[in-house]
Amino acid sequence: MNQQQQQIERFCRRLGYQFLDPQLITKALTHRSASNHHNERLEFLGDAVLGMVIARALFTQFPKVDEGQLSRMRSSLVKGKTLAVIAKEIDLGDYINLGEGELKSGGFRRASILADAFEAVIGAVYLDAGFEKTNTLILELYGQRLTEINPADTQKDAKTRLQELLQSRRLSLPEYELLDVSGEPHDQTFEVACCITEKAIQTKGSGSSRRNAEQLAAEKALTELQQLLAS
Amino acid sequence: MNQQQQQIERFCRRLGYQFLDPQLITKALTHRSASNHHNERLEFLGDAVLGMVIARALFTQFPKVDEGQLSRMRSSLVKGKTLAVIAKEIDLGDYINLGEGELKSGGFRRASILADAFEAVIGAVYLDAGFEKTNTLILELYGQRLTEINPADTQKDAKTRLQELLQSRRLSLPEYELLDVSGEPHDQTFEVACCITEKAIQTKGSGSSRRNAEQLAAEKALTELQQLLAS
Repeated sequence: MNQQQQQIERFCRRLGYQFLDPQLITKALTHRSASNHHNERLEFLGDAVLGMVIARALFTQFPKVDEGQLSRMRSSLVKGKTLAVIAKEIDLGDYINLGEGELKSGGFRRASILADAFEAVIGAVYLDAGFEKTNTLILELYGQRLTEINPADTQKDAKTRLQELLQSRRLSLPEYELLDVSGEPHDQTFEVACCITEKAIQTKGSGSSRRNAEQLAAEKALTELQQLLAS
Repeated sequence: MNQQQQQIERFCRRLGYQFLDPQLITKALTHRSASNHHNERLEFLGDAVLGMVIARALFTQFPKVDEGQLSRMRSSLVKGKTLAVIAKEIDLGDYINLGEGELKSGGFRRASILADAFEAVIGAVYLDAGFEKTNTLILELYGQRLTEINPADTQKDAKTRLQELLQSRRLSLPEYELLDVSGEPHDQTFEVACCITEKAIQTKGSGSSRRNAEQLAAEKALTELQQLLAS
């Protein structure tokens, strides 16, 4: 057994799954910087499998929770940041095959590379073992993250919450206005105002996109409105 | 058998699947305007199942196509417009249970209601029959749309194509600049310029979002650049 095979053996023990076809896991661990036989197609497949496994688990676990809440919980469980954390738990970064450049710049620690490789590993397990075994493995890897997730932790975004609060009090919807765009074309800053005329609330937010600026302005307006309504 | 049961019988024949648990299909066909026992949770589940079935089918059917292209093909196959077309082919609109208001305003013809109900039906079949049978049914319903899809038909967006063409000719990347934002806060128009300095190309685009405006400007710049390079 050569060194690469030994490495892969070790990773499979760490992952908790032995491949019938070792070429699949070799490919899943190969970043595009290292070879043309890289993991991106497996990542595409793994992303879809993961999305379905998490959707089914949440659907079963929360029989009373509505679709919007389920969607938000799913997003928080399959986003890159979460996948990178799980990837680190199984030391995935130690086993990714990277090109010279990525190695030198510490690519094995980059969240996006870890998350993508994790999805590719899921895709490889799925091709090797089918849906049910992949499902079991994913649930094991997620562990408490899935069993202890709380619907209330995944909030709607600030603009939505502000709109809902206003509607529940029969107040008019807020108006967002773009006040200013500054900076170089590739690095602009947007400044936005959020106005709730009936309550004389006007807040401002700025960010690298109009959307981010609006969310910040909405967050501040929501705080002011809640204080006003509570007083 | 009452009238509603007869209706559902008819729809199941049209769909090509007989439910073991008829309550599932009843729920899948119930819009939130008609009852609290509506189809939105099933829609959440069906969306994930559909996404995975189409991802797996494309992955197998196109062994040489890269991840980006697979993603774009999948998007075009699972977008609301496509789902609404398939829903119409099985006359889904005739069987959706809508509230008074939606009925009067012709909700059974609305693409979003049809697409959502179609996903809910997929979710119901999945709960009733499991993955493999749902997979078979989805592939039947998609038919030629899936077997005859051409990777070249789903193009990358204009900004990406422009960037790739410039890179392949070792030219600098374009600069996008926001020229103007006009209109009321809820109905703004963005005007954007796209500049390729080395080739003295400058085009403009306008749209309801900055992104749309940039895509239009990029599309025009791409046309000018192609003409210039071909001449």
